Amino acid sequence: MSKYYIGIDLGGLNIKGGVVSAENKALNFESILTEAQGGPKHVIARMASLIEMVREKAGVPREEIAGVGIGSPGPLSTRKGVVFETPNLPGWKNVPLAAEIRELTGYPTVIENDANAASLAEAVAGAGKGLPCMLMLTLGTGIGGGIVIDGHVWHGADDIGAELGHISICYNGRRCNCGSIGCVEAYASATGIVRRTQEALRAGARSSLARGEKNDLALVPKEAKCGHIFRVARQGDRLAKKIVADTAVYLATAIGSLINTFNPDMIVLYGGIAKAGSQLFGPVRKEVRRRCFAIGARRCKIVPSKLGAQAGVIGAAISARQALEKS
Amino acid sequence: MSKYYIGIDLGGLNIKGGVVSAENKALNFESILTEAQGGPKHVIARMASLIEMVREKAGVPREEIAGVGIGSPGPLSTRKGVVFETPNLPGWKNVPLAAEIRELTGYPTVIENDANAASLAEAVAGAGKGLPCMLMLTLGTGIGGGIVIDGHVWHGADDIGAELGHISICYNGRRCNCGSIGCVEAYASATGIVRRTQEALRAGARSSLARGEKNDLALVPKEAKCGHIFRVARQGDRLAKKIVADTAVYLATAIGSLINTFNPDMIVLYGGIAKAGSQLFGPVRKEVRRRCFAIGARRCKIVPSKLGAQAGVIGAAISARQALEKS
Repeated sequence: MSKYYIGIDLGGLNIKGGVVSAENKALNFESILTEAQGGPKHVIARMASLIEMVREKAGVPREEIAGVGIGSPGPLSTRKGVVFETPNLPGWKNVPLAAEIRELTGYPTVIENDANAASLAEAVAGAGKGLPCMLMLTLGTGIGGGIVIDGHVWHGADDIGAELGHISICYNGRRCNCGSIGCVEAYASATGIVRRTQEALRAGARSSLARGEKNDLALVPKEAKCGHIFRVARQGDRLAKKIVADTAVYLATAIGSLINTFNPDMIVLYGGIAKAGSQLFGPVRKEVRRRCFAIGARRCKIVPSKLGAQAGVIGAAISARQALEKS
Repeated sequence: MSKYYIGIDLGGLNIKGGVVSAENKALNFESILTEAQGGPKHVIARMASLIEMVREKAGVPREEIAGVGIGSPGPLSTRKGVVFETPNLPGWKNVPLAAEIRELTGYPTVIENDANAASLAEAVAGAGKGLPCMLMLTLGTGIGGGIVIDGHVWHGADDIGAELGHISICYNGRRCNCGSIGCVEAYASATGIVRRTQEALRAGARSSLARGEKNDLALVPKEAKCGHIFRVARQGDRLAKKIVADTAVYLATAIGSLINTFNPDMIVLYGGIAKAGSQLFGPVRKEVRRRCFAIGARRCKIVPSKLGAQAGVIGAAISARQALEKS
């Protein structure tokens, strides 16, 4: 009896994978380098070998694997199984990812947007387990999102729903990479946080961050820089504290709008920045109460992810089960 | 065989009603004064008599009326049939509206938020007929909203979903009546439009509106004032043109966020301001294209209401049919 699904989480740096049980538990969890510079064929071959690797390590025979789910950066078509393009994976243009993995591995394969997959996992098996309406914001280099209603991802007409990082919090605000204006991603992603800090330093703000900026900070990845800013804020640095407080306002503005739109049961904050814990959640929750209807604010728990790094893998497997057991 | 439902649309000034067929057509449409100052008991008695009046005028026997649906200003509980309070109806506090109408008329009765009811009508029988995801903004003294997915209203956990007028378009913007900051209602409702105009006049802007402001304009209702501003803009008045252009930007910011969130098939603009036609829809559509993903903008038609003043009545009847034929 086939009862296991393999979940794969494709990222710009790493591919993660695991075998997921009918109870939505990951039997194992492995990570390999994406080697994105090798191009789509190379990356797809690596995914196929990871799929066999996690199956073997979990000790599950081939015939008990019912299918494979892949969480991929978008935009993509879940119905066609095609990834249209992904900013962090060079050469990916209209790649029929589901068909190619199916051909290489022999398993029925389904693809899903990576943020949607992680959200699905949290809603079905994580922080929002069993809730009718859970939203998630993935706070990283950019800001992604997921909307899960009654245990299913909201895709929208073209699989591009839930781009919650591109809710505008200021009609005449910062220009976003997406081309729009005032997207919360332009303010509260790691990229946005680092940029605001650099602007303040360039404008002459006094801060212990000024030293780092001149030396090594310019070289480390944005999420690590961001962690440094939060750390310095905890130590009392005035600029860093202001940057963190403003970040909470920006996130709370988008979250307040989401609460007034969905009246949801829960919003999960996921990813690197969300690891700041109470330093972020405290001011975000306080600001949200000022920025939406009281009933909605009382209802909606704002919480960290429960599944952490495994959410993408587990969610990819769940979306495969939902798609393949429906058809 | 009971196949008709009566829809009632309760407003601060008027109560509208009609008998609605199984094909979602209003057999008739009547409007009486609310006489809100008489208090809940008085208003409810007037609603009950309107129900009998429209039934008789339509020539439908009592036994062919399967139920009554009432669209009411909120917040309210559809499950309990209770209106918690309504800003425009003095004395309404925790009114068991459904039970009282049922007692007075003998018909099974269901209540629904008025903007939700109008949205449901447009999605099931109007501009968005048959589309999987249609949103509506009701542009009036305030801005209301509705979200209809697969022919059913999205209510949220506490029946306060779809408060789309309270999406923030500016994290540090105008204070809204709801207590939040930067709500699109504070900018682009009739109230917001008139206020922005008055502020500009007070700041010394030269405009033919300055004359009206000193005389009668201060006395007429906000929606009529707003119509005047749009009219003067068409005649070339510079301030009025700027006010209208800014209104399009504010609305487009909220609409862009909604498109990036839902990837919907259609957004309907409803109500007094939407009657400005191409003067509003042209710039709104253009601004929306700048403010969301291209695929989403291409998908989402932005159109005026098709059912107009009847939408609330037809939608109230549809929500009664959905609730009563499900149970």
